[in-house]
Amino acid sequence: MTDEPLYHVDGDLVPASEATVSVDDRGFRYGDAAFETMRAYGGTIFEWDRHVERLERTCQSLSLAHGLADTDLRDRIDETLAANDLADAYVRLSITRGVQPGKLTPQPEVDPTVVIYVTPLPRGGLESEPVWDGPATVKSIETRRMPEQAVPASAKTHNYLNGILARAELRGTDADEALLSDLEGNVAEGATSNLFFVRDGVLCTPTTDGPVLPGITRELVLELAEDAGVPTREERYGLEEVCEAEEAFLTNRTWELRPVDRVDDAVIGGGPVTERLSRLYDERVEKACYEE
Amino acid sequence: MTDEPLYHVDGDLVPASEATVSVDDRGFRYGDAAFETMRAYGGTIFEWDRHVERLERTCQSLSLAHGLADTDLRDRIDETLAANDLADAYVRLSITRGVQPGKLTPQPEVDPTVVIYVTPLPRGGLESEPVWDGPATVKSIETRRMPEQAVPASAKTHNYLNGILARAELRGTDADEALLSDLEGNVAEGATSNLFFVRDGVLCTPTTDGPVLPGITRELVLELAEDAGVPTREERYGLEEVCEAEEAFLTNRTWELRPVDRVDDAVIGGGPVTERLSRLYDERVEKACYEE
Repeated sequence: MTDEPLYHVDGDLVPASEATVSVDDRGFRYGDAAFETMRAYGGTIFEWDRHVERLERTCQSLSLAHGLADTDLRDRIDETLAANDLADAYVRLSITRGVQPGKLTPQPEVDPTVVIYVTPLPRGGLESEPVWDGPATVKSIETRRMPEQAVPASAKTHNYLNGILARAELRGTDADEALLSDLEGNVAEGATSNLFFVRDGVLCTPTTDGPVLPGITRELVLELAEDAGVPTREERYGLEEVCEAEEAFLTNRTWELRPVDRVDDAVIGGGPVTERLSRLYDERVEKACYEE
Repeated sequence: MTDEPLYHVDGDLVPASEATVSVDDRGFRYGDAAFETMRAYGGTIFEWDRHVERLERTCQSLSLAHGLADTDLRDRIDETLAANDLADAYVRLSITRGVQPGKLTPQPEVDPTVVIYVTPLPRGGLESEPVWDGPATVKSIETRRMPEQAVPASAKTHNYLNGILARAELRGTDADEALLSDLEGNVAEGATSNLFFVRDGVLCTPTTDGPVLPGITRELVLELAEDAGVPTREERYGLEEVCEAEEAFLTNRTWELRPVDRVDDAVIGGGPVTERLSRLYDERVEKACYEE
């Protein structure tokens, strides 16, 4: 790979430093865009079908009919990985509503802007190190997770200030992830991660009936737990239930499973369930991306 | 003015069609940016000081220390107006957190991206036509105004999906503004406007104690009403109170005061209070921007 990566912007591969969008693009003016964060392992996008499905759900939430075929998007991603000579990478795909005449009201005719970002990201997992530096230190903060009625929680969009304000609250602390609760005080999720914890041997995670992003890693972890006979529960939980947990970990596409060292003053850490699920997750990646 | 306007991007005047920002700019990736929408009348930015003040409040909400002097921003705006040979214009100023290394967590060191947009916008008011085509048709919609605890309502940011989803609900109707209520069902504001209505001769508007943008036109209208001896009230109101109003109008920088023809099925219209305040507003513009 060259010194700087090549991004894919609206059909062209361009050096990252020259990759731009119009200041009139609605993605810039309003954050009017959908995105997915993916990982390529051994040149394969892990769980591509789930990403496509969630992307479509986001675009439906936004009434954003981009008109692009899945295969077209996949081709652009594969082309970008190839041009950067990358097999193991962080991949971000953004689709904006593009430039539209007139003002705020979204028009049905969309000429979308498609941006694909890639960054080298060696695989954690079976043989190598995880991508995170160490277990997460989590802090519960004041900013509340955006409620479903304002912007659907299942939509992954460029409106990310809610998470940024959450992270900004961590300044001056040693925490590296902010834990947001919903307006009723139930624990929802991290700024960029879903939360899992283990109580009495049961794997618990906040239900997506609340304002919780249906993370793909979250979904996979629940499936892996069920396959392995680990009891799971998706409900609404208070912070005190998390703090009393035997184990806790965060999930997202980049981190995969990341143990939680502390939530506020409560020392938790990983443990046998976290380790077992991490191993099962690694095996799943291995099978999906490296074996025929 | 030439065929296309010149925008001011990070210190340079560039044709609008070539005005871009990096796809790595946080304004694009996350909508991590503050903005102000202004009007120039006769070459003067109307109520510049209030815009600066609100911009600073927004930036404080976002912990975005852009480090730019007010005079610097004003110089860039004046330069842009002059380069476009524009005296009467719509002006938008955006300040983003720029490109930062690392991920979502905002870093204290900011190299902001500053974008100034201008579009010719003839003055409505004393002698000419208003900029809107006619009175507004307003529809109450399902999307709820983002609550203060998720993203401060007083912040004008590039996270505008809440308003876009509201406007998207108008598809297939004849309405041109969406009226958002808060999560408790109190009327909050339009997608891009504040709401006023008159009941028993009292000028009413939803209080900014709720999730309501403290619009500068809103503030001016309240001041003008008080100076003119029109009683005013800022409270929480239900939709039915608006529908029973004698008069109603919307305000924003572009529209100034725009009468409301209908809210859902309730025919309302402007009236003597709306007309009087519109005239007072025009006189205020006249005095501030055209007289010494």
